[in-house]
Amino acid sequence: MEFLQRTHKCGELRGSDANKEVVLNGWIHRVREHGGIVFINLRDRYGITQIAVDDASPAEAREIAKSLKMEFCISVMGKVRLRPDNMKNPDMPTGEIELSAQRIQILNKCETLPFMIDEVNKDGSPVIANEDLRLKFRYLDLRTARMQKNIAMRAKASLAVRNFMYSEGFYEIETPTFIKSTPEGARDYLVPSRLYPGKFYALPQSPQIYKQLLMVSGFDKYFQIARCYRDEDARGDRQPEFTQIDIEMSYVKRDDVLALNEKLMATVFKDVMNVDIPLPIRRIPYDDAIALYGTDKPDLRFDMKMQDGSFMADLSDFTLFKTAVAEGGIVKALVVPGMAEKYSRKMIEELEGAAKIFRAKGLAWTKVAGEDSAPTLEGGIGKYFENSAAEICQKLGAKKGDLLLFTADTAKVACAALGAVRSKLGKDLGLCDPNRFEFAWIVDFPMFEWNETENKWDPAHHMFTMPQEQYHDTLESDPGSVKGDLYDMVLNGYELASGSIRIPYPELQQRIFDIVGYKKEDAEMKFGFMTGAFKYGAPPHGGIAFGLDRLVMIMAGESSIRDVLPFPKNTFACSPMDESPATVDEAQLKELHIKIVD
Amino acid sequence: MEFLQRTHKCGELRGSDANKEVVLNGWIHRVREHGGIVFINLRDRYGITQIAVDDASPAEAREIAKSLKMEFCISVMGKVRLRPDNMKNPDMPTGEIELSAQRIQILNKCETLPFMIDEVNKDGSPVIANEDLRLKFRYLDLRTARMQKNIAMRAKASLAVRNFMYSEGFYEIETPTFIKSTPEGARDYLVPSRLYPGKFYALPQSPQIYKQLLMVSGFDKYFQIARCYRDEDARGDRQPEFTQIDIEMSYVKRDDVLALNEKLMATVFKDVMNVDIPLPIRRIPYDDAIALYGTDKPDLRFDMKMQDGSFMADLSDFTLFKTAVAEGGIVKALVVPGMAEKYSRKMIEELEGAAKIFRAKGLAWTKVAGEDSAPTLEGGIGKYFENSAAEICQKLGAKKGDLLLFTADTAKVACAALGAVRSKLGKDLGLCDPNRFEFAWIVDFPMFEWNETENKWDPAHHMFTMPQEQYHDTLESDPGSVKGDLYDMVLNGYELASGSIRIPYPELQQRIFDIVGYKKEDAEMKFGFMTGAFKYGAPPHGGIAFGLDRLVMIMAGESSIRDVLPFPKNTFACSPMDESPATVDEAQLKELHIKIVD
Repeated sequence: MEFLQRTHKCGELRGSDANKEVVLNGWIHRVREHGGIVFINLRDRYGITQIAVDDASPAEAREIAKSLKMEFCISVMGKVRLRPDNMKNPDMPTGEIELSAQRIQILNKCETLPFMIDEVNKDGSPVIANEDLRLKFRYLDLRTARMQKNIAMRAKASLAVRNFMYSEGFYEIETPTFIKSTPEGARDYLVPSRLYPGKFYALPQSPQIYKQLLMVSGFDKYFQIARCYRDEDARGDRQPEFTQIDIEMSYVKRDDVLALNEKLMATVFKDVMNVDIPLPIRRIPYDDAIALYGTDKPDLRFDMKMQDGSFMADLSDFTLFKTAVAEGGIVKALVVPGMAEKYSRKMIEELEGAAKIFRAKGLAWTKVAGEDSAPTLEGGIGKYFENSAAEICQKLGAKKGDLLLFTADTAKVACAALGAVRSKLGKDLGLCDPNRFEFAWIVDFPMFEWNETENKWDPAHHMFTMPQEQYHDTLESDPGSVKGDLYDMVLNGYELASGSIRIPYPELQQRIFDIVGYKKEDAEMKFGFMTGAFKYGAPPHGGIAFGLDRLVMIMAGESSIRDVLPFPKNTFACSPMDESPATVDEAQLKELHIKIVD
Repeated sequence: MEFLQRTHKCGELRGSDANKEVVLNGWIHRVREHGGIVFINLRDRYGITQIAVDDASPAEAREIAKSLKMEFCISVMGKVRLRPDNMKNPDMPTGEIELSAQRIQILNKCETLPFMIDEVNKDGSPVIANEDLRLKFRYLDLRTARMQKNIAMRAKASLAVRNFMYSEGFYEIETPTFIKSTPEGARDYLVPSRLYPGKFYALPQSPQIYKQLLMVSGFDKYFQIARCYRDEDARGDRQPEFTQIDIEMSYVKRDDVLALNEKLMATVFKDVMNVDIPLPIRRIPYDDAIALYGTDKPDLRFDMKMQDGSFMADLSDFTLFKTAVAEGGIVKALVVPGMAEKYSRKMIEELEGAAKIFRAKGLAWTKVAGEDSAPTLEGGIGKYFENSAAEICQKLGAKKGDLLLFTADTAKVACAALGAVRSKLGKDLGLCDPNRFEFAWIVDFPMFEWNETENKWDPAHHMFTMPQEQYHDTLESDPGSVKGDLYDMVLNGYELASGSIRIPYPELQQRIFDIVGYKKEDAEMKFGFMTGAFKYGAPPHGGIAFGLDRLVMIMAGESSIRDVLPFPKNTFACSPMDESPATVDEAQLKELHIKIVD
């Protein structure tokens, strides 16, 4: 069908365009009749323009206008005219003008909508349709202002990343997505090979091995915005496929990687949102992060640091504290300023719920009362500490009206549990300003974790991480103390990026394999081609990977990565739109030499 | 291991840097001893610098220098000094200077190489290792100047594409790679779902459906450099995964798409290679391309158009020509200027081989002799046309010394076969200058192809292509005549891009499904979600997709896309490096609820 092509976009006409003959193409955002005049808000990617169909319009246009419904796709030719002063809309960029319709073409009709585009409640807040409905009709959901903004922001963020990386001399290099199944194989998605019955390609969980090989190849500065895959049990905000900003550099030390990547983030936030991120980004050793925030991804938009309350074990007979400390554990304390009155017993029980998820036996509490010069502890465990209230308040820096919260357990449990309480408090008390962006580097991670089930050391990160120089002599004798050249970038309580300096030395790599009990044959079979490559003069190198989905999610102020993906799967790894995954023809399976079994 | 980090790259030091203390990191490209001095050519991504280890170097450095071998990764601290005039090398950017080594650190050793990096033959041409060996040790092959150049060129081409597309207002939007199996399903790679036994995701052969949905969503101008997958039988230069520059636009007509995309190519060639592509790119209707070049992807670096020789059927009793024309076929003629003497009977037989691949019964030939005023036809079929030599030469524009070649058959076979002969001549005669880039648009393709086996009409391109306006009334009555709004961009005999204006109208789409006999249920099941989406006000739209691998291959002057991919599969869809595809654990298959069958 021949159609009148737009001469302008729906967001660009201004008062200065008055009397111009123009054509707009777009969707009918709203249509209403008012005093015999049909007003159409015509929408495209660029904005909305008001169309008026009135006596100035030919009869044919007036006739067509009557049949128009929401989301019809139309072409309108008309003359730009100034709106009467009392009809001007200063909230719309095009609010000074309207288009007097001369000709209207219906390009395509629209069936009854499953939900209205950009419907608002009476209070002006958006009506959000049920998520499965949004995903089933994703092509309509993507027409909403919110999704248009989010997808545009994602595109702009990718562009900002690429421009910065190129300006720093990096090449974007595409690594393969059909690879060999890796050691974490259990989470690999597999692709059966038709040409080789019984054999499979694996989809990469990251380009890790390939980017390291590119360093061996001499590419020196590599990045890629790469699609990755992980077959996880549906939990929280995960997707079977996700996108990562993958970076690797040769001849670098840790601080080079940190410097480049914090500059990257500052550039992206400036380019996309005009937000200034002060550099350098603070660095917090892993042990401090755990001690102060109970997590290696602290939300630093609020302070409220945890403190060591172990000294309290000596101040009374309160068993929980005494036992914990006696057994080598600790007491962790959190002062919640001014919240004594606000927090009822019931609300404290909710906080305790958060602590118990992290295996705390309970959450002890009390409230500071009396005078600042002679404070008392009232309620909860206060009665056990009648005589030492002043000492406790002084040591913890607590004041009248503060709520005090405590966990007592092994250091690991006490920190994690009280950290969870801190996080919940941040959210509950509205301390997490979505317009603040508080970055930190977490550094000096442990290299190894003790696996209680299998009674062995596991790699805490991945096996190619370089242990810090000063631990090289004690790797085998004291694995638990070894810190790796690992670094995470955290933002507002999320892990945004994770990276490390790698081991380019085959002998050192073998020592790591030995410590974690990774069998030589397995290592050889799984990535012998990588460790083999290191024998040909591998350079020192390191890198990092950012979760692009999560980065854009935080920038867009969303709480799910699904809202920054054009066509996500739902939380059950399905697409309500195309209904994938789906069954396939028997003939196809036969060709692949596979059979479904129960 | 602590190491001395580079202060400079191996390509940047010049005479003006003399006396500077610098550190270089890199690989030993070559090392030789000459008069007690060890000369090292140290290489990184940026170039090569000569290191001299002589009496000016400390004993320790001299000692280490003796142990150095090719491709050791080292760090060298030293002082830049001017070379003596007679030692300057004007062919090297760093040829004015050398680095007098003060300290040498071996960062990593290198085992005996499977092949030398950038080995040259005595005549200066490169030694190319066996391809399987190159792929097995790809990380070493990528160190060669050729592969460094190709991968860098690929990165630059991607950047040029992105910058241009963003400057034109396009958003890059990432479409999913876990989708529903499509109608061309037989070529889909499948991914078994662990969470849904018996169900599969398919990997996309292109983002086609999703980019069209993005138009329905109002994104207006979309592009993506997208990974795609096709499970083809190993043939020629195919890869299981490949990359495409995918583009879609709303509210456009064919000429808008052509104009944008030829500007894109001109920009990429200018940015990456400083080559000017004159615009507009010529347009050749499909029928003309077949008639003149026997192919819809003609190599236009040389002219040599085919001609209609059917008139010759009336000039003699030569049966082949007479029968072909009598049966509704044609005679195609090719004049090869000045090649009468050069082409022996044996060489003509080789050309005939090319014709026979395209089902020609044979290749008729003769040579023009005599005087231009009174030409004769000698050899081959000349004897049949003794009396009409002058007429033939005049009509075909043939001159003394020209070789004349003919096919006679159905139009399809005669054109294709002689077109293949033309292509072979182009190569054999050295007419295909790798530094020339001759673009063309092929337009006005047929919509439907007659499927002789199944006795039905097939879509010639894909089913979502818009038939040209003037054929809308005769779609069903005369499918064979219908031209579609299809366009291919060809370059030097390759199809570089293919696209079309799409059908946004559900009714018209249904008519196309009916003509090609695509069952309603099948259409509904396979992409009902897309045709369904079109009922919600789909805008007019169209697009195109370029093969990025092929584009870069042509730009780089390579003849295989494997040479512009960092880690390609071989022609048998395997990676000699990681040996994928590979077997996986039984446990993994069990989790996926699949079993291997013979």
